Amino acid sequence: MQAINVSIGVDQRLWPQDLAGSRAHCRMLAERKIISAEAAEAILGGLDTIESEITNGSFPFRDQYEDIHMNVEARLAELIGEASGRLHTARSRNDQVATDFRLWVREACDHTVGQLEALQSALLDKAEPHADDLMPGFTHLQPAQPVTFGHHLMAYVEMFGRDASRFADARARMNESPLGAAALAGSPFPIDRQMTARALGFDRPMANSLDAVSDRDFALESLAAASICAGHLSRLAEEIVIWMTPQFGFVTLPDHLTTGSSIMPQKRNPDAAELVRAKTGRIMGSLVALSTVMKGLPLAYSKDMQEDKPPVFEAFDALDLALVAMTAMVAALKPDTGRMRAAAGSGFSTATDLADWVVRELDLPFRQAHHITGAAVKRAEALGVDLAQLPLDELTAIEPGITSEVYKVLSPEASCDSRRSYGGTAPEQVRARIAEWKTRLS
Amino acid sequence: MQAINVSIGVDQRLWPQDLAGSRAHCRMLAERKIISAEAAEAILGGLDTIESEITNGSFPFRDQYEDIHMNVEARLAELIGEASGRLHTARSRNDQVATDFRLWVREACDHTVGQLEALQSALLDKAEPHADDLMPGFTHLQPAQPVTFGHHLMAYVEMFGRDASRFADARARMNESPLGAAALAGSPFPIDRQMTARALGFDRPMANSLDAVSDRDFALESLAAASICAGHLSRLAEEIVIWMTPQFGFVTLPDHLTTGSSIMPQKRNPDAAELVRAKTGRIMGSLVALSTVMKGLPLAYSKDMQEDKPPVFEAFDALDLALVAMTAMVAALKPDTGRMRAAAGSGFSTATDLADWVVRELDLPFRQAHHITGAAVKRAEALGVDLAQLPLDELTAIEPGITSEVYKVLSPEASCDSRRSYGGTAPEQVRARIAEWKTRLS
Amino acid sequence: MQAINVSIGVDQRLWPQDLAGSRAHCRMLAERKIISAEAAEAILGGLDTIESEITNGSFPFRDQYEDIHMNVEARLAELIGEASGRLHTARSRNDQVATDFRLWVREACDHTVGQLEALQSALLDKAEPHADDLMPGFTHLQPAQPVTFGHHLMAYVEMFGRDASRFADARARMNESPLGAAALAGSPFPIDRQMTARALGFDRPMANSLDAVSDRDFALESLAAASICAGHLSRLAEEIVIWMTPQFGFVTLPDHLTTGSSIMPQKRNPDAAELVRAKTGRIMGSLVALSTVMKGLPLAYSKDMQEDKPPVFEAFDALDLALVAMTAMVAALKPDTGRMRAAAGSGFSTATDLADWVVRELDLPFRQAHHITGAAVKRAEALGVDLAQLPLDELTAIEPGITSEVYKVLSPEASCDSRRSYGGTAPEQVRARIAEWKTRLS
Amino acid sequence: MQAINVSIGVDQRLWPQDLAGSRAHCRMLAERKIISAEAAEAILGGLDTIESEITNGSFPFRDQYEDIHMNVEARLAELIGEASGRLHTARSRNDQVATDFRLWVREACDHTVGQLEALQSALLDKAEPHADDLMPGFTHLQPAQPVTFGHHLMAYVEMFGRDASRFADARARMNESPLGAAALAGSPFPIDRQMTARALGFDRPMANSLDAVSDRDFALESLAAASICAGHLSRLAEEIVIWMTPQFGFVTLPDHLTTGSSIMPQKRNPDAAELVRAKTGRIMGSLVALSTVMKGLPLAYSKDMQEDKPPVFEAFDALDLALVAMTAMVAALKPDTGRMRAAAGSGFSTATDLADWVVRELDLPFRQAHHITGAAVKRAEALGVDLAQLPLDELTAIEPGITSEVYKVLSPEASCDSRRSYGGTAPEQVRARIAEWKTRLS
Repeated sequence: MQAINVSIGVDQRLWPQDLAGSRAHCRMLAERKIISAEAAEAILGGLDTIESEITNGSFPFRDQYEDIHMNVEARLAELIGEASGRLHTARSRNDQVATDFRLWVREACDHTVGQLEALQSALLDKAEPHADDLMPGFTHLQPAQPVTFGHHLMAYVEMFGRDASRFADARARMNESPLGAAALAGSPFPIDRQMTARALGFDRPMANSLDAVSDRDFALESLAAASICAGHLSRLAEEIVIWMTPQFGFVTLPDHLTTGSSIMPQKRNPDAAELVRAKTGRIMGSLVALSTVMKGLPLAYSKDMQEDKPPVFEAFDALDLALVAMTAMVAALKPDTGRMRAAAGSGFSTATDLADWVVRELDLPFRQAHHITGAAVKRAEALGVDLAQLPLDELTAIEPGITSEVYKVLSPEASCDSRRSYGGTAPEQVRARIAEWKTRLS
Repeated sequence: MQAINVSIGVDQRLWPQDLAGSRAHCRMLAERKIISAEAAEAILGGLDTIESEITNGSFPFRDQYEDIHMNVEARLAELIGEASGRLHTARSRNDQVATDFRLWVREACDHTVGQLEALQSALLDKAEPHADDLMPGFTHLQPAQPVTFGHHLMAYVEMFGRDASRFADARARMNESPLGAAALAGSPFPIDRQMTARALGFDRPMANSLDAVSDRDFALESLAAASICAGHLSRLAEEIVIWMTPQFGFVTLPDHLTTGSSIMPQKRNPDAAELVRAKTGRIMGSLVALSTVMKGLPLAYSKDMQEDKPPVFEAFDALDLALVAMTAMVAALKPDTGRMRAAAGSGFSTATDLADWVVRELDLPFRQAHHITGAAVKRAEALGVDLAQLPLDELTAIEPGITSEVYKVLSPEASCDSRRSYGGTAPEQVRARIAEWKTRLS
Repeated sequence: MQAINVSIGVDQRLWPQDLAGSRAHCRMLAERKIISAEAAEAILGGLDTIESEITNGSFPFRDQYEDIHMNVEARLAELIGEASGRLHTARSRNDQVATDFRLWVREACDHTVGQLEALQSALLDKAEPHADDLMPGFTHLQPAQPVTFGHHLMAYVEMFGRDASRFADARARMNESPLGAAALAGSPFPIDRQMTARALGFDRPMANSLDAVSDRDFALESLAAASICAGHLSRLAEEIVIWMTPQFGFVTLPDHLTTGSSIMPQKRNPDAAELVRAKTGRIMGSLVALSTVMKGLPLAYSKDMQEDKPPVFEAFDALDLALVAMTAMVAALKPDTGRMRAAAGSGFSTATDLADWVVRELDLPFRQAHHITGAAVKRAEALGVDLAQLPLDELTAIEPGITSEVYKVLSPEASCDSRRSYGGTAPEQVRARIAEWKTRLS
Repeated sequence: MQAINVSIGVDQRLWPQDLAGSRAHCRMLAERKIISAEAAEAILGGLDTIESEITNGSFPFRDQYEDIHMNVEARLAELIGEASGRLHTARSRNDQVATDFRLWVREACDHTVGQLEALQSALLDKAEPHADDLMPGFTHLQPAQPVTFGHHLMAYVEMFGRDASRFADARARMNESPLGAAALAGSPFPIDRQMTARALGFDRPMANSLDAVSDRDFALESLAAASICAGHLSRLAEEIVIWMTPQFGFVTLPDHLTTGSSIMPQKRNPDAAELVRAKTGRIMGSLVALSTVMKGLPLAYSKDMQEDKPPVFEAFDALDLALVAMTAMVAALKPDTGRMRAAAGSGFSTATDLADWVVRELDLPFRQAHHITGAAVKRAEALGVDLAQLPLDELTAIEPGITSEVYKVLSPEASCDSRRSYGGTAPEQVRARIAEWKTRLS
């Protein structure tokens, strides 16, 4: 029974939040004269001692006191004696736990936003010098149209930007204080919930005491944001793994971000990318775990809710590692622009440009333009040349209206450069987006 | 192969979005003189005809044309001939699908917010007349402290309020237009993405064409919001199921919201509540399904992403039904206030009030107050009476300082009424919260 | 990078499996004269030393050696010098890890089967003395027909029996040895994979070397079995929570399996049951985590697969705790047979017995029997009596053919006793099933 | 309320199982003289008519009758009048639904096993002619050691073999009859559950009536098997997608299994493989959905359980499509053996063979062999040659003991051929495994 009940091994890391919550509560109790100034002073002194003890490693974490809150409480009693009991006036373990955990999750969100911005910066720094460098734009992992490497990286800047805004929204929504809800019904003491809320950086107290102790939305929403973010990381990780195959050879990573073998010193295994990709599983699993725990729980507090911390801690630990690893990889990624350019130009990747030219310049409907382009591609394939090398008479044999002007759009560079619609891959567009994001992040 | 590829059975319902997207694109093409005014007129006329056909049931949905977009395209060609092809200038199926689906999800979010507000209103209407009616506040499904039924319902108003704000945030984040991203690289035609974005009610065009066609965050985030919301519904549904047992007997539902049996005409099975509770599974499953699909997909478009629609449609259909059913149940819920009051007063539910009184009035530390209270409860249990009926000499035998003033806090009504801290269960607090929410929702 | 790569904190517990695998491999190498007898002796001696060191706590686990396998390898080299390297002949980390982890999961399955049998025994021991004691059989948590408490418990014996057989099937399927698959292609040394398989208790070597190093089915299947089992535990846990409410009052648990409060000494919170219920989330989350990791991984080994251990360890740790806690609860569960009997007899719970009697004795079709029964229930409700107390003239007024014989089926005892079809709730049936299971488990 | 309650749109497909169950029940009732021979004849005749009506499309499926069971019941009453009611003697909707659904899932498992064997056959047919054809064996998607294409395919034969055995185990475990459990407590009629069990192909009746109506393990276990199988399909699908890139160019698929574009007629998008990969999400989502529904449901029947069918139907529909598509792809897959062979020989893929040779022939410990090999690889890289082309004096400069014998192991063919340990990639091993599987499947 003790084994299933004890959580100190898991929730120990909540100590800074627990101390912060207790300090805020203690000061409010004194301010409202619910406890004496002397008692408050003793308590605050004891909490300071506890903080020192934890920081210097001398604090006695003990299984017999179930969780971090009981450990702190028991230690405080040892340190300052009877006055310690006054701290629990107008507070219950239910609102205390809810407050501490919420503070932790809020900090995790803030930390993640910072990490996401660092990752975005790394992407911007990598995108900028490669705003003109061509690579194939893939659909179905088949080259479809040329894009620039910078443009490709900027797609991830957008994704991680949404991730950051998702964590920010979650943070704003969770930023209400459960403290003062007491066990579940509120307190008969003349407490000031606004004051404790303010002291802990919350925007306001939560408006319903039952909700305050039974809500774990903030954890679920953060896990959902983490899961979507992990999905983005997994996509980029997958691309790095594929790009690093000798068959693609698009990028290399330095030794410290890969593993080799003593036997094959040339080998570069993209272990870090694979581990980032795998973390997605962990994070999705955490979301499922907590969602399942909360399903069908009657109000207000059930012990099931003690199982809220492991999935959240594990998910954020995994996300933290994944973001650090991905940021390091992006910063260190060395593209082989020659191989990328060659791949971008192969496979008749400017076929749509030919079709668009026919539509635009000869004013033919799309169906006909497609037909002409298909014939041109077939002919080029037969001759073993690319579209840009197909002689004009071959093209005019298919459609007499075609002129030598068409060659202006048939190179991958021209193709890229022409896609100047907002958000398109034309280098000028890419550079404009980079500039905007740099401003936004600075 | 066709069987696995065809999606018209699923995505048919996207027709209003598909027509809206095509109209916006067509008008922009004409405005930018990319197509002629005549072609635009013909196209818009054809789209009107298609809308009529679908509305009146005469539109020929055909499996041979894979999905809704191809069905509309094929029909348009039949109706207006060659001009129809002009519509596809500067647009690809990739950005078209991304636009249509995003429009659908945006509308689903708006619809859900409306439903959540209706449910909140039903809860407010039920909470108001019961702002004073007592029931047990449970922890571990054991009565802990008295609360009011109105206060309990108001906890759900808070939850559904957060749900609504979550859908609103998701909606704001997704409200950018993919249209004009074309296949993945943007368009060489002089299109105006701002214009189409505006026409479709988007705040702006998406800033990266690769991201525009490969992003499905908006669907995942909406599913996550739906999943958290379904969790709330499952908690209330579980409570209704438990409250409706003869053992609890806290509430009844009218016949049209329960099922009985010809053989046991008195039976009231809470089928609707059980089905609401079960929908949580479906919705969480949908989130897992789409998250799994998206994991590790390289940019830009992969066919895997066609599997985005079934989970989203099913989840929102399930949520829609669950919200309608729950709103009807809340509106029809008839509490047995007598049984609730009796349960609220049993089990020494004011023990914490006694302890708080001892702390407050006798200025004893918590530990001692707990000790006194425990002794009083034990004595009351032995005598077979509740705390409020325990004679004063019994109490003074335990702690001489106790006076008859203590009885003012020992009734469940007094207990409730005393919890006036912000968000507490005191009827004045409950009524204040109801008033605030009524203002907010009006 | 090290932080994301290091797994020694997690996989340390694989040491017994790692030593067993190395011993088997070493003996085979010597037997096949791939290494000398002297080298083998030195290695085996070194492994013995390592086992002692780990057992007595003096083994130096070091982060610099990434995982348990490298830690053992490094220590072996320190202990016996150059000969240690011979152990790696014809073996790679890939098949070594796959073997160790498979051995661990196999033991976890065996352990779980043992625990399930202990839980079944506890259920049988509780069911036997209560084979005649009535309680309501619920549908929709509404009393429907009387059953016996023994019968109800026996339903769980069936469920946990299926769980045990599921783990046994998983164990049989996984019981093939990956050892000798080497990196992925098999070995050029004349190894004997049958010999190592036998030594490690495997039924045979795996038949394909690529599959051997890339398969994690055994982990997934075990997690799936654990997840279904956890679902059963959650159902029983939910029932205990509900039965322990004062409203139901069907069962009590002793103090050491509940938690109370100093302030409310009479309180019995079913914490253990709630924690068991919550573990379901953890275990389902683990299944989702590993399934997500494995999705779309190309053969043979990817580093993603290092993320296989945390979910498996956590799920089995959670299941272990949950089974221990549930077994203790079942053994200690004290039913209040009086309250259960009273509930079983209320709510016209023998209405179907009346209808069945009418069909059987009066040979009327079901529809008419339902009509008669419905009328009888309505009449009894109006008179405020139960069906067994409804006077005969009231019954004959509804259907003249009814005789006093009918009262033989209208008591809950008679109802239960009559349901003698195989697997029915009649005490003789319940006792027969208990006897069968006792034989099967002994 | 009707909308949330109606399931006829979903469970309609259970009609064959519903008729089979009713026929078995009817014959047993007559045999045990619970109903008359005439009534039984009328019922069986009516059921035949209903079967004809459904088969020829004239059966009136009606929403007003909630589900398939009520639709059949209502129609039977219309067809044969009062006798129809006799069919419901000693049966309840609870055991009827449980029986029908179990029969459906059992057939789905059988069907899936058949499909898996077809897929295995296709793999065997493809593996056999390519038992000698080299390709790189990958770790981390980096070429590691040469294997044969046949060997690689045979890894999947093993996986799908385990899948088939998993479905077979699930089928054996679920093959018990719930029929006769009635509502939940068994029946007072002298029914013969063995007889109905036999008639429906079940091995025996379920041993506990409460378990019989509340168990959905069979569905969960089948979904878990489906999910693991989908994982295997996703891995092969991922490989096909990667192999089909122009960068890899390992395989091609014919036109009917890919999609192209009118504009790029040379394009081959691996849509079918991508859709197979995506189905994994759907199937995992279904498992989560039903697991979530079942979590914490008290016995016996709750309406939540009506939500069991959609996830099961959808998962098996998805798996069916995925298996058909994958079998077609495997049969049609055309490897480019030249490109595969070239890739297999690049990247110093025989480095481990060199190390193994040094250990074996020169009796040096592994560490030293690794050192020598690493030096040789570095030298070869510097000279721009492969290991097999490295002159002997270069090798002897590193380690004087090396002789020209070493070249026998340095070609990819020799490497492959040498790995003759059981289950290794040596063609003789691959052919032996193919032969075994052909026998097993025939």
